[in-house]
Amino acid sequence: MSDERFELTPIGKVRSPLRDLAAAPKQGDEGAPDAWLVIEANLVAGLRGIQAGDDVLVLTWLDRASRDVLEVHPRSDSSRPLQGVFGTRSPDRPNPIGLHRVEVMEIIDNRIRVHRLEALDGTPILDLKPVLSADPGER
Amino acid sequence: MSDERFELTPIGKVRSPLRDLAAAPKQGDEGAPDAWLVIEANLVAGLRGIQAGDDVLVLTWLDRASRDVLEVHPRSDSSRPLQGVFGTRSPDRPNPIGLHRVEVMEIIDNRIRVHRLEALDGTPILDLKPVLSADPGER
Repeated sequence: MSDERFELTPIGKVRSPLRDLAAAPKQGDEGAPDAWLVIEANLVAGLRGIQAGDDVLVLTWLDRASRDVLEVHPRSDSSRPLQGVFGTRSPDRPNPIGLHRVEVMEIIDNRIRVHRLEALDGTPILDLKPVLSADPGER
Repeated sequence: MSDERFELTPIGKVRSPLRDLAAAPKQGDEGAPDAWLVIEANLVAGLRGIQAGDDVLVLTWLDRASRDVLEVHPRSDSSRPLQGVFGTRSPDRPNPIGLHRVEVMEIIDNRIRVHRLEALDGTPILDLKPVLSADPGER
């Protein structure tokens, strides 16, 4: 392992009715509820231009994950062969960054309501990015 | 800003003919070259199951970025109005994590050759994830 280190600081937190890891869906489109992204008040300028209806990628810090796991049974299904974590969406991985695609429903100051997010309540948010148009002329 | 901190460690580095930020394309499908992802040798088990032809998301640490910028002119075009960084793909943002979609061309031990990556030579790699099928039954 490299001895370089980089430091992240959360830009906000997820507020969600999901509180139990065992009950949470594995992906947003597998029955996840709506949730709020509560962004730090001093970063609100970073949200300028984001609108209801936008598709957004949310990067999170999966703080319940195990960082020393390199192989898993996909979707925790022991009948499936072991696979390297980099070929799966398992939260267990050396840098447990979660990636979630959501639709913005509404924005109120520093709070963004999004459709179908499988992250647990309290999950730290690292970044938001737009989903890119396939047409470079529309970027 | 929150006072929580999380620590990342690179899982590898990009090897690319791209060495100059000013000359680099802004996105992979805007003329980026092929590149190698060189993964740390002790993490090679994490690659098990990844194959040529797979579409993979590469998360990088954009180590030349400015972390205290909250608004930018999209695509560095000063004729476009200022926009919040979370609504753009600007590398400048509080947590400068890059997200790149690439196709795997070949894998040799801990080295993965990928098609069209706009990251500069030496860029630290944080994570690899599969692009999810739209069909949950295929995950």
